[in-house]
Amino acid sequence: MNFPVVPLGKPRGERADAARNREQLLAAARAMIAEHGTRKVTMDALAERAGLGKGTVFRRFRTRAGIFRALLDEEERRFQERVLSGPPPLGPGADPAQRLIAYGRARIAFLLEHHAIARAALDRAQPIPVGEVAMTRPHIRMLLGLSGSRLPHPDTLAVQLTAALEGPLLLYLSMDEDAASPAMEAAHPLAESWQTLIERVLQVDLPPEEA
Amino acid sequence: MNFPVVPLGKPRGERADAARNREQLLAAARAMIAEHGTRKVTMDALAERAGLGKGTVFRRFRTRAGIFRALLDEEERRFQERVLSGPPPLGPGADPAQRLIAYGRARIAFLLEHHAIARAALDRAQPIPVGEVAMTRPHIRMLLGLSGSRLPHPDTLAVQLTAALEGPLLLYLSMDEDAASPAMEAAHPLAESWQTLIERVLQVDLPPEEA
Repeated sequence: MNFPVVPLGKPRGERADAARNREQLLAAARAMIAEHGTRKVTMDALAERAGLGKGTVFRRFRTRAGIFRALLDEEERRFQERVLSGPPPLGPGADPAQRLIAYGRARIAFLLEHHAIARAALDRAQPIPVGEVAMTRPHIRMLLGLSGSRLPHPDTLAVQLTAALEGPLLLYLSMDEDAASPAMEAAHPLAESWQTLIERVLQVDLPPEEA
Repeated sequence: MNFPVVPLGKPRGERADAARNREQLLAAARAMIAEHGTRKVTMDALAERAGLGKGTVFRRFRTRAGIFRALLDEEERRFQERVLSGPPPLGPGADPAQRLIAYGRARIAFLLEHHAIARAALDRAQPIPVGEVAMTRPHIRMLLGLSGSRLPHPDTLAVQLTAALEGPLLLYLSMDEDAASPAMEAAHPLAESWQTLIERVLQVDLPPEEA
Protein backbone atom coordinates (compact mmCIF):
# COMPACT_ATOMS: atom_id res chain seq x y z
CA MET A 1 0.00 0.00 0.00
CA ASN A 2 1.25 3.46 -0.69
CA PHE A 3 -1.09 5.44 1.47
CA PRO A 4 0.50 8.85 2.12
CA VAL A 5 1.85 9.50 5.59
CA VAL A 6 -0.51 11.93 7.29
CA PRO A 7 1.11 14.73 9.30
CA LEU A 8 0.19 14.50 12.98
CA GLY A 9 -1.70 17.78 13.11
CA LYS A 10 -4.66 18.43 15.32
CA PRO A 11 -7.85 16.73 14.23
CA ARG A 12 -9.97 19.08 12.14
CA GLY A 13 -13.23 20.37 13.50
CA GLU A 14 -15.56 17.49 14.36
CA ARG A 15 -17.21 16.25 11.22
CA ALA A 16 -20.62 14.65 11.20
CA ASP A 17 -19.17 11.16 10.86
CA ALA A 18 -16.41 11.62 13.48
CA ALA A 19 -18.30 10.03 16.34
CA ARG A 20 -19.29 7.09 14.17
CA ASN A 21 -15.67 6.56 13.04
CA ARG A 22 -14.50 6.71 16.63
CA GLU A 23 -17.02 4.08 17.73
CA GLN A 24 -16.11 1.89 14.76
CA LEU A 25 -12.40 2.13 15.59
CA LEU A 26 -12.82 1.43 19.28
CA ALA A 27 -15.10 -1.52 18.55
CA ALA A 28 -12.51 -2.90 16.13
CA ALA A 29 -9.74 -2.39 18.71
CA ARG A 30 -11.77 -4.21 21.37
CA ALA A 31 -12.40 -7.12 19.02
CA MET A 32 -8.70 -7.36 18.12
CA ILE A 33 -7.70 -7.31 21.80
CA ALA A 34 -10.26 -10.00 22.63
CA GLU A 35 -8.86 -12.21 19.87
CA HIS A 36 -5.09 -11.70 20.15
CA GLY A 37 -4.37 -9.41 23.09
CA THR A 38 -2.93 -5.94 22.73
CA ARG A 39 0.25 -6.76 20.81
CA LYS A 40 -1.26 -7.05 17.35
CA VAL A 41 -3.14 -3.76 17.63
CA THR A 42 -1.16 -1.35 15.49
CA MET A 43 -2.27 1.77 13.64
CA ASP A 44 -2.16 -0.08 10.31
CA ALA A 45 -3.90 -3.22 11.52
CA LEU A 46 -6.63 -1.21 13.20
CA ALA A 47 -7.31 0.82 10.05
CA GLU A 48 -7.57 -2.37 8.03
CA ARG A 49 -9.80 -4.12 10.56
CA ALA A 50 -12.14 -1.12 10.88
CA GLY A 51 -12.25 -0.65 7.10
CA LEU A 52 -11.16 2.98 7.49
CA GLY A 53 -8.24 4.91 6.08
CA LYS A 54 -4.97 5.10 8.00
CA GLY A 55 -5.29 8.86 7.95
CA THR A 56 -8.47 8.59 10.00
CA VAL A 57 -6.71 6.43 12.59
CA PHE A 58 -3.74 8.78 12.81
CA ARG A 59 -5.88 11.89 13.11
CA ARG A 60 -8.00 10.27 15.78
CA PHE A 61 -5.33 8.69 18.03
CA ARG A 62 -1.96 10.17 16.88
CA THR A 63 0.02 7.26 18.41
CA ARG A 64 -0.50 3.57 19.08
CA ALA A 65 -0.67 4.37 22.80
CA GLY A 66 -3.45 6.83 21.95
CA ILE A 67 -5.69 3.95 20.87
CA PHE A 68 -5.38 2.33 24.28
CA ARG A 69 -5.76 5.64 26.06
CA ALA A 70 -9.09 6.19 24.31
CA LEU A 71 -10.22 2.69 25.33
CA LEU A 72 -9.13 3.31 28.92
CA ASP A 73 -10.92 6.69 29.00
CA GLU A 74 -14.16 4.95 28.08
CA GLU A 75 -13.69 2.39 30.84
CA GLU A 76 -12.78 5.16 33.33
CA ARG A 77 -15.99 6.98 32.52
CA ARG A 78 -17.98 3.82 33.15
CA PHE A 79 -16.13 3.32 36.45
CA GLN A 80 -16.88 6.90 37.53
CA GLU A 81 -20.58 6.42 36.82
CA ARG A 82 -20.63 3.39 39.13
CA VAL A 83 -19.01 5.49 41.89
CA LEU A 84 -21.24 8.52 41.40
CA SER A 85 -24.60 6.85 40.87
CA GLY A 86 -24.23 3.06 41.08
CA PRO A 87 -25.46 0.84 43.90
CA PRO A 88 -23.77 1.00 47.36
CA PRO A 89 -21.26 0.45 48.84
CA LEU A 90 -19.32 1.73 45.79
CA GLY A 91 -22.07 4.17 44.96
CA PRO A 92 -23.81 6.56 47.37
CA GLY A 93 -25.78 5.31 50.37
CA ALA A 94 -23.28 3.29 52.39
CA ASP A 95 -21.28 4.32 55.43
CA PRO A 96 -18.17 6.42 54.47
CA ALA A 97 -15.73 3.75 55.74
CA GLN A 98 -17.48 1.09 53.68
CA ARG A 99 -17.45 3.35 50.65
CA LEU A 100 -13.73 4.03 51.03
CA ILE A 101 -12.98 0.33 51.26
CA ALA A 102 -15.29 -0.43 48.34
CA TYR A 103 -13.71 2.33 46.27
CA GLY A 104 -10.19 0.98 46.81
CA ARG A 105 -11.25 -2.58 46.09
CA ALA A 106 -13.08 -1.52 42.93
CA ARG A 107 -10.19 0.67 41.78
CA ILE A 108 -7.67 -2.14 42.25
CA ALA A 109 -9.98 -4.58 40.45
CA PHE A 110 -10.52 -2.04 37.66
CA LEU A 111 -6.82 -1.51 36.99
CA LEU A 112 -6.03 -5.21 37.21
CA GLU A 113 -8.94 -6.09 34.92
CA HIS A 114 -7.79 -3.54 32.35
CA HIS A 115 -4.07 -4.01 32.99
CA ALA A 116 -3.21 -4.92 29.40
CA ILE A 117 -4.95 -1.83 28.02
CA ALA A 118 -3.58 0.42 30.77
CA ARG A 119 -0.06 -0.89 30.18
CA ALA A 120 -0.34 -0.37 26.42
CA ALA A 121 -1.68 3.14 27.06
CA LEU A 122 1.59 4.07 28.79
CA ASP A 123 3.55 6.18 26.37
CA ARG A 124 7.07 6.83 27.58
CA ALA A 125 7.02 10.28 26.01
CA GLN A 126 3.89 11.19 27.98
CA PRO A 127 2.93 11.38 31.66
CA ILE A 128 1.25 8.24 32.98
CA PRO A 129 -2.34 8.49 31.74
CA VAL A 130 -4.07 6.42 34.42
CA GLY A 131 -5.53 8.86 36.88
CA GLU A 132 -5.80 11.72 34.41
CA VAL A 133 -9.55 11.52 34.58
CA ALA A 134 -9.45 9.76 37.92
CA MET A 135 -11.45 10.96 40.83
CA THR A 136 -9.48 9.15 43.49
CA ARG A 137 -8.11 12.04 45.57
CA PRO A 138 -11.25 14.21 45.75
CA HIS A 139 -13.39 11.13 46.39
CA ILE A 140 -11.15 9.96 49.26
CA ARG A 141 -11.05 13.50 50.66
CA MET A 142 -14.83 13.74 50.61
CA LEU A 143 -15.31 10.40 52.35
CA LEU A 144 -12.69 11.21 55.01
CA GLY A 145 -14.69 14.35 55.76
CA LEU A 146 -18.00 12.47 55.91
CA SER A 147 -16.53 9.80 58.19
CA GLY A 148 -16.67 12.02 61.25
CA SER A 149 -13.26 10.71 62.31
CA ARG A 150 -11.08 13.41 63.90
CA LEU A 151 -8.24 13.67 61.38
CA PRO A 152 -5.98 16.71 61.87
CA HIS A 153 -4.78 17.09 58.25
CA PRO A 154 -7.42 15.49 56.02
CA ASP A 155 -6.13 17.15 52.81
CA THR A 156 -2.62 15.74 53.00
CA LEU A 157 -3.92 12.45 54.39
CA ALA A 158 -6.12 12.18 51.29
CA VAL A 159 -3.03 12.78 49.12
CA GLN A 160 -1.15 10.05 51.00
CA LEU A 161 -4.01 7.54 50.80
CA THR A 162 -4.39 8.27 47.08
CA ALA A 163 -0.69 7.49 46.63
CA ALA A 164 -1.08 4.34 48.76
CA LEU A 165 -3.88 3.16 46.47
CA GLU A 166 -2.66 4.23 43.03
CA GLY A 167 1.14 4.09 43.45
CA PRO A 168 1.57 0.31 43.69
CA LEU A 169 -0.77 -0.18 40.73
CA LEU A 170 1.12 2.29 38.55
CA LEU A 171 4.35 0.56 39.52
CA TYR A 172 2.79 -2.75 38.54
CA LEU A 173 1.54 -1.35 35.23
CA SER A 174 4.97 0.04 34.37
CA MET A 175 6.50 -3.43 34.82
CA ASP A 176 7.30 -5.71 31.93
CA GLU A 177 4.13 -7.43 30.74
CA ASP A 178 5.58 -10.93 31.03
CA ALA A 179 6.82 -10.33 34.57
CA ALA A 180 3.40 -9.10 35.58
CA SER A 181 0.94 -11.40 33.83
CA PRO A 182 0.01 -14.13 36.37
CA ALA A 183 -3.75 -14.49 36.77
CA MET A 184 -5.19 -11.66 38.83
CA GLU A 185 -7.50 -12.89 41.55
CA ALA A 186 -10.38 -10.81 42.84
CA ALA A 187 -8.97 -11.04 46.38
CA HIS A 188 -5.70 -9.38 45.54
CA PRO A 189 -3.57 -8.79 48.66
CA LEU A 190 -3.42 -5.06 47.82
CA ALA A 191 -7.21 -4.95 48.25
CA GLU A 192 -6.97 -6.75 51.59
CA SER A 193 -4.35 -4.42 52.98
CA TRP A 194 -6.25 -1.39 51.64
CA GLN A 195 -9.19 -2.54 53.75
CA THR A 196 -6.90 -2.88 56.80
CA LEU A 197 -5.46 0.58 56.14
CA ILE A 198 -8.90 2.24 55.97
CA GLU A 199 -10.28 0.31 58.96
CA ARG A 200 -7.33 1.44 61.07
CA VAL A 201 -7.36 5.03 59.84
CA LEU A 202 -11.09 5.36 60.48
CA GLN A 203 -10.97 3.14 63.58
CA VAL A 204 -13.71 0.78 62.43
CA ASP A 205 -13.72 -3.00 62.05
CA LEU A 206 -15.65 -4.48 59.18
CA PRO A 207 -16.06 -8.13 58.19
CA PRO A 208 -13.48 -9.33 55.57
CA GLU A 209 -15.63 -8.96 52.44
CA GLU A 210 -18.10 -6.28 53.46
CA ALA A 211 -17.29 -4.30 50.35
CA MET B 1 37.31 27.18 23.78
CA ASN B 2 37.61 24.37 21.32
CA PHE B 3 37.80 21.44 23.66
CA PRO B 4 36.82 18.34 21.67
CA VAL B 5 33.41 16.82 22.37
CA VAL B 6 33.99 13.65 24.35
CA PRO B 7 31.88 10.66 23.34
CA LEU B 8 29.65 9.53 26.19
CA GLY B 9 31.23 6.11 26.56
CA LYS B 10 31.58 4.31 29.87
CA PRO B 11 34.15 5.81 32.19
CA ARG B 12 37.48 4.04 31.82
CA GLY B 13 38.77 1.85 34.62
CA GLU B 14 39.16 3.86 37.83
CA ARG B 15 42.37 5.76 37.73
CA ALA B 16 44.28 6.67 40.83
CA ASP B 17 43.10 10.28 40.69
CA ALA B 18 39.46 9.46 39.92
CA ALA B 19 38.25 9.64 43.52
CA ARG B 20 40.06 12.93 44.03
CA ASN B 21 38.53 14.41 40.86
CA ARG B 22 35.11 13.28 41.95
CA GLU B 23 35.47 14.93 45.35
CA GLN B 24 36.80 18.08 43.74
CA LEU B 25 33.86 18.22 41.32
CA LEU B 26 31.21 17.58 43.96
CA ALA B 27 32.75 20.19 46.27
CA ALA B 28 32.73 22.71 43.42
CA ALA B 29 29.10 21.85 42.61
CA ARG B 30 28.09 22.30 46.25
CA ALA B 31 29.82 25.67 46.38
CA MET B 32 28.11 26.81 43.18
CA ILE B 33 24.70 25.73 44.46
CA ALA B 34 25.30 27.53 47.77
CA GLU B 35 26.13 30.72 45.89
CA HIS B 36 23.61 30.79 43.06
CA GLY B 37 21.27 27.82 43.38
CA THR B 38 21.19 24.96 40.91
CA ARG B 39 20.50 26.87 37.69
CA LYS B 40 24.02 28.04 37.01
CA VAL B 41 25.53 24.57 37.47
CA THR B 42 26.26 23.38 33.96
CA MET B 43 28.85 20.91 32.69
CA ASP B 44 31.03 23.76 31.37
CA ALA B 45 30.72 25.99 34.44
CA LEU B 46 31.46 23.09 36.75
CA ALA B 47 34.62 22.14 34.83
CA GLU B 48 35.81 25.71 34.95
CA ARG B 49 35.05 26.15 38.64
CA ALA B 50 36.75 22.86 39.58
CA GLY B 51 39.74 23.62 37.36
CA LEU B 52 39.33 20.31 35.54
CA GLY B 53 38.83 19.46 31.90
CA LYS B 54 35.37 19.23 30.44
CA GLY B 55 36.17 15.68 29.40
CA THR B 56 36.58 14.72 33.04
CA VAL B 57 33.18 16.17 33.89
CA PHE B 58 31.51 14.42 30.97
CA ARG B 59 33.09 11.07 31.74
CA ARG B 60 32.16 11.34 35.40
CA PHE B 61 28.51 12.53 35.16
CA ARG B 62 27.51 12.09 31.49
CA THR B 63 24.64 14.62 31.80
CA ARG B 64 23.89 17.73 33.83
CA ALA B 65 21.28 15.74 35.78
CA GLY B 66 24.08 13.27 36.57
CA ILE B 67 25.88 15.93 38.63
CA PHE B 68 22.84 16.35 40.86
CA ARG B 69 22.27 12.63 41.01
CA ALA B 70 25.78 12.14 42.37
CA LEU B 71 25.18 14.85 44.98
CA LEU B 72 21.86 13.28 45.94
CA ASP B 73 23.46 9.83 46.22
CA GLU B 74 25.94 11.19 48.73
CA GLU B 75 23.16 12.74 50.80
CA GLU B 76 21.13 9.53 50.59
CA ARG B 77 24.05 7.56 51.97
CA ARG B 78 24.36 9.96 54.89
CA PHE B 79 20.62 9.66 55.50
CA GLN B 80 20.82 5.86 55.50
CA GLU B 81 23.62 5.94 58.05
CA ARG B 82 21.45 8.01 60.39
CA VAL B 83 18.66 5.44 60.04
CA LEU B 84 20.92 2.40 60.44
CA SER B 85 23.19 3.59 63.22
CA GLY B 86 22.24 7.11 64.32
CA PRO B 87 20.52 8.07 67.56
CA PRO B 88 16.87 7.04 68.22
CA PRO B 89 14.06 7.52 67.35
CA LEU B 90 15.31 7.62 63.72
CA GLY B 91 18.08 5.16 64.52
CA PRO B 92 17.74 1.86 66.41
CA GLY B 93 16.54 1.75 70.00
CA ALA B 94 13.11 3.37 69.94
CA ASP B 95 9.69 1.75 69.80
CA PRO B 96 8.77 0.62 66.22
CA ALA B 97 5.84 3.05 65.98
CA GLN B 98 8.07 5.94 67.03
CA ARG B 99 10.71 4.82 64.55
CA LEU B 100 8.16 4.66 61.72
CA ILE B 101 6.94 8.16 62.51
CA ALA B 102 10.50 9.45 62.84
CA TYR B 103 11.50 7.81 59.57
CA GLY B 104 8.63 9.43 57.66
CA ARG B 105 9.29 12.82 59.22
CA ALA B 106 13.02 12.57 58.46
CA ARG B 107 12.39 11.36 54.91
CA ILE B 108 9.99 14.23 54.20
CA ALA B 109 12.44 16.73 55.72
CA PHE B 110 15.29 15.17 53.72
CA LEU B 111 13.53 15.51 50.38
CA LEU B 112 12.29 19.01 51.12
CA GLU B 113 15.74 20.09 52.32
CA HIS B 114 17.33 18.75 49.16
CA HIS B 115 14.42 19.56 46.86
CA ALA B 116 16.45 21.75 44.50
CA ILE B 117 19.07 19.04 44.00
CA ALA B 118 16.46 16.28 43.78
CA ARG B 119 14.48 18.27 41.22
CA ALA B 120 17.57 18.97 39.14
CA ALA B 121 18.50 15.27 39.34
CA LEU B 122 15.27 14.39 37.53
CA ASP B 123 16.20 13.53 33.99
CA ARG B 124 13.15 13.15 31.79
CA ALA B 125 14.88 10.45 29.78
CA GLN B 126 15.50 8.40 32.95
CA PRO B 127 13.34 6.89 35.67
CA ILE B 128 12.94 9.10 38.74
CA PRO B 129 16.20 8.66 40.67
CA VAL B 130 15.00 9.45 44.17
CA GLY B 131 14.38 6.15 45.86
CA GLU B 132 16.84 4.24 43.72
CA VAL B 133 19.09 3.75 46.73
CA ALA B 134 16.23 4.32 49.14
CA MET B 135 15.52 1.91 51.91
CA THR B 136 11.97 3.05 52.55
CA ARG B 137 9.99 -0.12 51.74
CA PRO B 138 12.20 -2.69 53.51
CA HIS B 139 12.57 -0.38 56.50
CA ILE B 140 8.81 0.14 56.81
CA ARG B 141 8.24 -3.60 56.37
CA MET B 142 10.72 -4.42 59.13
CA LEU B 143 9.19 -1.96 61.57
CA LEU B 144 5.64 -3.16 60.83
CA GLY B 145 6.85 -6.65 61.73
CA LEU B 146 8.53 -5.48 64.94
CA SER B 147 5.46 -3.49 65.98
CA GLY B 148 3.58 -6.59 67.11
CA SER B 149 0.40 -5.17 65.55
CA ARG B 150 -1.75 -7.85 63.92
CA LEU B 151 -1.61 -6.83 60.26
CA PRO B 152 -2.95 -9.46 57.84
CA HIS B 153 -0.90 -8.44 54.76
CA PRO B 154 2.20 -6.63 56.01
CA ASP B 155 4.07 -6.94 52.69
CA THR B 156 1.49 -5.13 50.59
CA LEU B 157 0.73 -2.73 53.45
CA ALA B 158 4.44 -1.80 53.45
CA VAL B 159 4.20 -1.15 49.69
CA GLN B 160 1.16 1.06 50.22
CA LEU B 161 2.72 3.01 53.09
CA THR B 162 5.88 3.50 51.03
CA ALA B 163 3.76 4.95 48.23
CA ALA B 164 1.89 7.12 50.78
CA LEU B 165 5.22 8.53 51.98
CA GLU B 166 7.20 8.86 48.75
CA GLY B 167 4.46 9.44 46.17
CA PRO B 168 3.41 12.96 47.21
CA LEU B 169 7.06 14.00 47.48
CA LEU B 170 7.90 12.71 44.00
CA LEU B 171 4.87 14.53 42.66
CA TYR B 172 6.07 17.69 44.40
CA LEU B 173 9.58 17.25 43.00
CA SER B 174 8.29 16.81 39.46
CA MET B 175 6.46 20.16 39.73
CA ASP B 176 7.80 23.35 38.28
CA GLU B 177 10.44 24.84 40.61
CA ASP B 178 8.77 28.24 40.81
CA ALA B 179 5.41 26.74 41.64
CA ALA B 180 6.99 24.69 44.41
CA SER B 181 9.50 26.97 46.06
CA PRO B 182 7.76 28.58 49.08
CA ALA B 183 9.77 28.18 52.28
CA MET B 184 9.55 24.64 53.58
CA GLU B 185 8.73 24.51 57.27
CA ALA B 186 9.91 21.69 59.49
CA ALA B 187 6.31 20.97 60.47
CA HIS B 188 5.13 20.21 56.97
CA PRO B 189 1.51 18.99 56.93
CA LEU B 190 2.62 15.82 55.13
CA ALA B 191 4.73 14.98 58.19
CA GLU B 192 1.76 15.61 60.49
CA SER B 193 -0.59 13.39 58.52
CA TRP B 194 2.12 10.71 58.21
CA GLN B 195 2.19 10.61 62.02
CA THR B 196 -1.61 10.30 62.11
CA LEU B 197 -1.47 7.53 59.52
CA ILE B 198 1.10 5.50 61.47
CA GLU B 199 -0.59 6.09 64.84
CA ARG B 200 -3.87 4.84 63.43
CA VAL B 201 -2.36 1.89 61.57
CA LEU B 202 -0.42 0.76 64.66
CA GLN B 203 -3.19 1.84 67.06
CA VAL B 204 -0.94 3.96 69.24
CA ASP B 205 -1.25 7.60 70.28
CA LEU B 206 1.91 9.63 70.60
CA PRO B 207 2.34 13.29 71.54
CA PRO B 208 2.47 15.65 68.51
CA GLU B 209 6.25 16.02 68.25
CA GLU B 210 7.48 12.77 69.81
CA ALA B 211 9.57 12.01 66.76
